[in-house]
Parts: sequence; C-alpha cells; structure tokens
Amino acid sequence: MARISRREAIAVAGGLAGSALIGDVAKAAESVERWGLHEIALEGPKEGNPFADIEVSARFTQGRTAIETPGFYDGDGVYRVRFSPPDTGEWRWTTQSNAPLMNGREGRFTVTAPSNGNHGPVSVVGYHFAHADGTPFRQIGTTSYGWTHQPEAMRRLTLETMRRAPFNKMRMAVFPNASLKTNVGPLPFARTGEADRDWDASRFDPAFFQRLEASVAALGALGVQADVILFHPYDGKYGFDEMSAAVDEAYLRYVVARLAAYRNVWWSLANEFDILKTKTEADWDRLFQIVREADPYGRPRSIHNWRTLYDNGKPWVTHSSIQNGSAVLDDARAETYRSVWKKAVIFDEVCYEGSLNERWGDLTGPEMVRAFWHGLIAGTYVGHSECLPTEPGGGFWLGEGGELRGESAPRLAFLKSIMEAGPTPGIEPIDKWWEQHLGGVPGRYYLRYFGDEAPTEWAVDLPRDDLTGGERFKVDLIDTWNMTIEPVPGEFVMRQKPNTRYFFSDPERPTIALPARQWMAVRVTRVENG
Amino acid sequence: MARISRREAIAVAGGLAGSALIGDVAKAAESVERWGLHEIALEGPKEGNPFADIEVSARFTQGRTAIETPGFYDGDGVYRVRFSPPDTGEWRWTTQSNAPLMNGREGRFTVTAPSNGNHGPVSVVGYHFAHADGTPFRQIGTTSYGWTHQPEAMRRLTLETMRRAPFNKMRMAVFPNASLKTNVGPLPFARTGEADRDWDASRFDPAFFQRLEASVAALGALGVQADVILFHPYDGKYGFDEMSAAVDEAYLRYVVARLAAYRNVWWSLANEFDILKTKTEADWDRLFQIVREADPYGRPRSIHNWRTLYDNGKPWVTHSSIQNGSAVLDDARAETYRSVWKKAVIFDEVCYEGSLNERWGDLTGPEMVRAFWHGLIAGTYVGHSECLPTEPGGGFWLGEGGELRGESAPRLAFLKSIMEAGPTPGIEPIDKWWEQHLGGVPGRYYLRYFGDEAPTEWAVDLPRDDLTGGERFKVDLIDTWNMTIEPVPGEFVMRQKPNTRYFFSDPERPTIALPARQWMAVRVTRVENG
Repeated sequence: MARISRREAIAVAGGLAGSALIGDVAKAAESVERWGLHEIALEGPKEGNPFADIEVSARFTQGRTAIETPGFYDGDGVYRVRFSPPDTGEWRWTTQSNAPLMNGREGRFTVTAPSNGNHGPVSVVGYHFAHADGTPFRQIGTTSYGWTHQPEAMRRLTLETMRRAPFNKMRMAVFPNASLKTNVGPLPFARTGEADRDWDASRFDPAFFQRLEASVAALGALGVQADVILFHPYDGKYGFDEMSAAVDEAYLRYVVARLAAYRNVWWSLANEFDILKTKTEADWDRLFQIVREADPYGRPRSIHNWRTLYDNGKPWVTHSSIQNGSAVLDDARAETYRSVWKKAVIFDEVCYEGSLNERWGDLTGPEMVRAFWHGLIAGTYVGHSECLPTEPGGGFWLGEGGELRGESAPRLAFLKSIMEAGPTPGIEPIDKWWEQHLGGVPGRYYLRYFGDEAPTEWAVDLPRDDLTGGERFKVDLIDTWNMTIEPVPGEFVMRQKPNTRYFFSDPERPTIALPARQWMAVRVTRVENG
Repeated sequence: MARISRREAIAVAGGLAGSALIGDVAKAAESVERWGLHEIALEGPKEGNPFADIEVSARFTQGRTAIETPGFYDGDGVYRVRFSPPDTGEWRWTTQSNAPLMNGREGRFTVTAPSNGNHGPVSVVGYHFAHADGTPFRQIGTTSYGWTHQPEAMRRLTLETMRRAPFNKMRMAVFPNASLKTNVGPLPFARTGEADRDWDASRFDPAFFQRLEASVAALGALGVQADVILFHPYDGKYGFDEMSAAVDEAYLRYVVARLAAYRNVWWSLANEFDILKTKTEADWDRLFQIVREADPYGRPRSIHNWRTLYDNGKPWVTHSSIQNGSAVLDDARAETYRSVWKKAVIFDEVCYEGSLNERWGDLTGPEMVRAFWHGLIAGTYVGHSECLPTEPGGGFWLGEGGELRGESAPRLAFLKSIMEAGPTPGIEPIDKWWEQHLGGVPGRYYLRYFGDEAPTEWAVDLPRDDLTGGERFKVDLIDTWNMTIEPVPGEFVMRQKPNTRYFFSDPERPTIALPARQWMAVRVTRVENG
C-alpha cells in the first residue's frame, strides 16, 4: 500500500528510525509529492540549551502563497523544518533564525503529483470528513493509548494488526500512561536521574519524539490517521499532568513543529480533560489556541471529555470527540450533539468490547458493533477499542496495542464497506426528531438499523422530503453481525401514502418481511433513472 | 390569590384597563411593594411624532444602586416610566428627557415588604429556576399564542381556565397570528387605513399594548409567568415578520419599556425562529442584545426553534427553549441539551395533546404527560398545549385559549405536586449516561419513571454516589396517570451490592413488585436520620 512517500517511509515501523532522516545537513530533497513531507535539516549551535535559546523557522512560498513553518531542535546540533506542500509545482524557502548560521538560508524544490493512495490530509467537511482530494474519509476509529511506548516487537505487532484491521484512525497518547508496567524507552524530556520525576522541563529528549513520529509515519503508511492526544490524566508518577503553563506551551510548540507536517496527524488536546484538575476550561481555551496558531495546516482539533463536556461550539474546535456510551444506544441521542454544535461528531469512547469487571470495559462484540450502527444512522462516527486480557491483570489493545481478540473488528470492516458504498461525504439523519431512525440522503438512499430489536416486518415508509411519487427503489436486508446482504426481489415504486401527508410508500408492497433476528438493517436505494 | 400588588391588579382580567393607569399625571404612588410596579406618569408633547421624537427615562437610586429605566409614550400626551424595585426602603428618581417639561423631574417613594404570595421575579439558577426570594419555580408551562388577541369574553375564559389549571408559565405572542380569524382589536402599530398592511411603522398604537400588558398583569395575578414571544413567522398578512432592522429595534425597545417592570415577564425572542427567513442568526444575536441592554431587570431570555437550533451557548441566552418532541421520549436524550450548553432547559414544544391530522398536534393525554415525566427525570422542564377543536376547523387552546378539553392537565397538576414535594431547586439526573433513568439528589432522593413500559418488578439499585452503606430509604409507587401514591411498607437499608462497585441495594429486599401497568414511577426517599 503506497499511501505515503518514500521519504516518510524512512521513518516507518516503530523503530528508532528518526535518525535516518539526519544526513544531508543543510540540504533537502529536490522533489516531494503533494501533501508529502519535505524536510530541511540545518546545522546549528549545540552549546547552551538549544531547545530554549535557539529559534528557527522557514517561510515556504509559491506565488502569492506563503506558509510560515516553525522548526525544532533534534539534538546533536541538527535543526529541522518540516513542510507538507499543499500544492504541486515549484516552492521556495528561506529560513529565519537567531542563530546566524541558520538564518537566511534558501532553497527550492518541486512538488509532484501525489502518488497512488495519497489523498491528502483529512479535514472536516460539514458534519463529515474528507481528504484534501475530495475522497470521503469514513471514520472507523480505534484507541490504543500507549502503543508507542511499548517494546519494539509489540509496536510491530500493533502495526501488523492495524494493517489487517478496518480502523482508519488511532487515538494515541504522547505521554506514557503511568499505570502501564510495560512502557520502555525515553521520556519526552531529558532525564536528570533515575527517579520518575528526574527530568528537565527545559530540554526535550529527541529520541522520544523520533519514536513517536516514526509511529505516526508508520500509521500513515497504512492509511491511518493518528489522533495524537496531547495531555491526559493517567499520570501521578511523572508529573506531565501538572507542568507549568510555560512548559505546556513549549511542549505543544515542540510537538506541533515535529508532527504537523505528517498529513495523517490530528490533535486531541486531551483525553478525559475534566479529570485533569490542574487545568481549567480557560487553560484549555489557551492551549487550543497555541496549537491552532502553531500548526500551519489546521489539522483537525478536538478535546475528549469524561463527565463534563467542553464547549465544542468554540471556534477552535473542528469536531466533537465525545465520551458517552449511552448516546450511541439510540441514533436520536447521538444526533443531538450534531444539532447543538453544528459540527462533525465522533463518539471516540462508547465503552469497549471487553471482559473487565468495569462497566466501561465489558461490552460484548454485538454491543460494540451496535454503537457504530446507531452512530452511523445519526450522521455521526464512533470509536472502538478492546479490553480483552488473556489472563487477569494482563494487557490489552486499549492500553498497549498488540493483537485484537474480540469479535467486533470484522463486523466493523463490514460496516465500513456499507459506508463506502453509501452516499458521500456521509449519512445524514432523515426526518430527525420524528422517530424514523433513518439515515441517508432523502430521495436517494435510506438506512434503517434495528439494533437489539428482532422485528418480523418493516413498513417501507419513506418520509416525504425529496419524493413526489413514481420513484423506484430497491431494498436490501443487511445482517450486520453475520455480514450478509440479501436483496429483496423486485422494486418499490413510491406513492403518497393515504391518510397522511408525511410518507410515501408502495401500495403494492407496503411492508417487507424481516427474519426476527437481532442486529438487522435495511437499505433502500433509488434505482438509477428511477 | 394575592400574588400581585393592588396597582398591578388595576390592569387585570384582560379588559382594556390600561387607561385606568392614566390619571395622576406627574405623580406616582408613595409606596409600592418590593418587586411590584411603580409607575411615573408625566405630561409631555403631543405634537409631531412623540414615539420617534421624544425620549424619556428615569434614574432610580437607592444608596449606591442606580437603575436607568427607559420610559415610553402612551398616547394623549402621557409618558410613563415603570420601575420594579429590587429592594425595600426609600428609592429616589430623577427623569431625563429631550422634552424640557419632562426633564429633571424628581420624586421618592418607599418600597415595602412583598405581600403574601409575591416571591419576586423568576430567574435561572443553574439548571433550574427560582423566584428572587429563593422559592423554587417548578416550571409547568403551557402555550396559547394568540389568547390576548381574542374578544374579551374569550380572554376572561382563558384566565378563568388558567386560574384552575396547574400551569405557571404561558407562552404568548405579541404579534397576532395571521391565520386566526378570531382576532379582534387594534394592531401594534397605528393604522393608516383598512387593509392589513395599512399601518405606520413609526407609531405604535398604545391601545394594543395596554391590552397586552393587562393580559400580562392578569397572568401575574394568578402567579403565572408570561413568556412573551417577540417575533414569530405566522404572518404573511400584516408583515410584522419582515420589518426593517430599525423598526424591529424600536418595537423591541417599546415592548421592553412597557413590560419589563412586570415581574412575571420572560422574553422569548421568537417562536420557530428558523422559519422566519427574513432574519439571520446574526440578526437574532443583535435583537437579543437589544433586549438585554434595554431591560433593567435581566428577565429570562430564550429563543425557540423549529428544525435548526440557535446556539444557546451564547451569553445572552439565559435558558434553552427547545422544540423537539422526540427528546422527551427518553430522559437521556433530554439531558443532552443540559450537558452541552450547561444551562436550564425547557422543552417548550414537544407536540401537543390533540386530535389534529398533523403529527405535531395528535398526542394522547398519556403521551403529553409522559413528556413531562421524562423531562423531569432528566433535570429539564416541559411545556404543554392542546389542539382539541370541538368541531373540524374549530379553535383550540394552542391558538386562542378558552377552555381546556384534554386529559393531561389534571395529571400535570399531580406531577407538579410531586415536584413541589421534591428536592430544591429541582431534580438532577443521577449517574447520567449509564441508563439509570433516575433523577433526584444522590444519597437523598431518587425518582424513576417507566413511561410506556409495564414492568412487574424493579431492582432498588442505587448508584454509589453519596452512599456508604447503612442509609435507610422509603419507597413509594406512583401511578402518574391515575394520580395515586402508594407507600411500599417498611424501609430499605442500603449495602454495597455484591460483585459490582457501582450500586448499593438492600440485600433483604433487592427488588419491589410493580403492577404491570404503564405510566408508573417509583420514588425512593431517604428516611430522616437514616
């Protein structure tokens, strides 16, 4: 799968491969594909504290377009500026730095057409998502908070699992989860001793970030968006949850300078932000704006709640990233979050498929899949994860990655195929607030999901919007668990239904039979020229 | 019911009694009760266009408190400034006007303690409402858009109905509903001819507003809040839905100057604002701010939607006034609107009890009542109305007022008695997002509503918040339709439930029997010293 450029692939597969990028100092590649990663490496000062003392950036220009791009210190006297060109053709660059050696350097390079499979970065389009080339992005997310902090063999296993899984977004934390005993490797900051809190808040450890960005690049090579969680409350050990405002800001600027040019990066300001008692909503406002200001590309930005919702109506929130398992038990609940904030919604945490004696980690496979279907009908998106240890106290996908052991993933691949065969950019709720439980496009496409009900028939009543009578439709029965699609023979020709002004129906075939099983759906599709 | 002062009562009962207020020009009463209405009447210019040319206001002071209060022209050379004193003791006033005769006039008066039943104006307190003296306001609303525009006998009938009904808030439009054939009396603007659009946008008709404020005062005398709807889309005849921005503003300032001092006034910027295609969301922002700026008392402000929600997170919205019947089919849906905007929510339109062949007007009595109960459990409030014509095409409560013919009102009185016996200021959802369907106060009071389910038993499992074990509770079975409360004998002593960390239960009595009827509720109340 050639979804990422050769240069990006250098940093692939979870190895500490970042150093492979260091080489042609003060040179850069002569060409890069559109939305690829163009890197300028520069020699600069090693003495003092380069993280704090030295600033470097570059201005990339093409015609009237100019993009100011912050650089970063990568250790060993090497500074880098990374750029992801938004358009093809020739680009020029000039550096600025308070280190004279790195100031006023210039160069140019050619941006070629994107390679096969490179659709560009994802952004929010109304209530949905799409790549820069217009390809819809049908979000089927998963979460493995700590996969990048695990031993290399485990990281490789995670990537191999992702290669075979349906997931196209991975939520992952920058900071290690202090509760995991399996973490290895450096900390984000330079160590000053062996104790957990022996680190220097004024110096980053490039090796930590090289591993992180190699992980991001490896996901990119698989076509997976990396939803990078910038803060989380699962600490109490290292103290990354209680840094000063100045250190928080320096950290954000460093992460953004290193990662923003990877086209598969999204920013999640925090996981369960409201557990992080060291920060107020005003702090989150400020941190959001630092990220927005530092990121030249406007990668998607969200913040993930525990019990209290951040005001997702604020302008720096591109989409909602909600924890609420009950919301996706019912499309009408899920839809509410769209209507109030008028933004795309991802229910990134809806409890997990698992065997824990915790109610957030004990969903059955069918329950995990159900959440995705209700969310889909509502015009929203959902996230998966698994808590299935092989032995009590053992690790699982949510924390460390590795392998998937649950039943939901194959059914989510099936769901994804239904989404990909459906309308673009996505499903809209139809005749919402009137108990239709229909998503799709009025007049063209209708999807009804029955969840844990097991009806024996369904009235093919289509809400009147965009129907005038005479339209022809075909109907498919979808078993979302057994992953079958069974066409209902013949066509349905719509007429105004008697005694109501709200529905159209085929008077010859007002209902269809259903098999009295759970997890069924019905798809009603307009016949071409119908 | 002495819920309003004698002076206010002058304008009572829906007659065109406003003129009774005109009299002691340039004088005013020597005393008024707290939160009553103190009026200064002044003689001024009649010539030209007093509505457009003359400004008058008064500054009311007590100690360091100063309240600037706009006045208005009431016709016949009389100008009025109305003031509702927020505190007892001596107040002084000085007028300002561009008419020399009315400028620099002064006076003083004494504010006495509120009379029995006067609890002061209602404001939003967190997710709930309370009067200024702290008395909870348990909102049980109704709507009759056009009752003030009906013949006097009809208005008197409406008020008599309200006197016997449980409703403590009435939604009512300023502008007549153009579709009603029963409207009588003047228009808000001075007529220039007989045609519907023969009116002068630069001159109000005081008689119209005298009737309106008499109606507001009459509701106040019954302890009913008047939710005054300032704009609505049901026109296409007079053109009040497409006035210029300047006329809109002059109109709002005139209404606010006349009505804000009535302590039972609320402002509803619009009904179904999103049908009013002549105004953008930016227009509504502006109109909200005009009202906020002109109203010295900060009366509750909201805006009511059709299909598109206004951003209720904006700071000038005091509470949400939502149309969505499906939201109150399920407390978890209703609760969402609280969590996202963190404001009190009234579902002011959830379809109506009625016999119409329209899906918004065909609820059965039980369905109307159900909406209130689900809303209550969610920590929100709900509104009622009726569409029950006695003959096809005939009028009904929603449009014109008159009499109530439905089954829901007595059950809403029963519901209100349950609310009044419950926690103050109101019910909070308990362990929300986990399918508890419980409202109340953790550790003290729990209310569970079963809606159209008809269970035979219920597990008395209380979520762990504010429980440690040993607490004693009593349980009541409530039949919300037959209006009975049946105590379950004995007490329930809570213990940590085995095999879960989420619930407490009485191991001796883990469940209670239910009668397999619809519309049941259970109330679990902490025993004093339990």
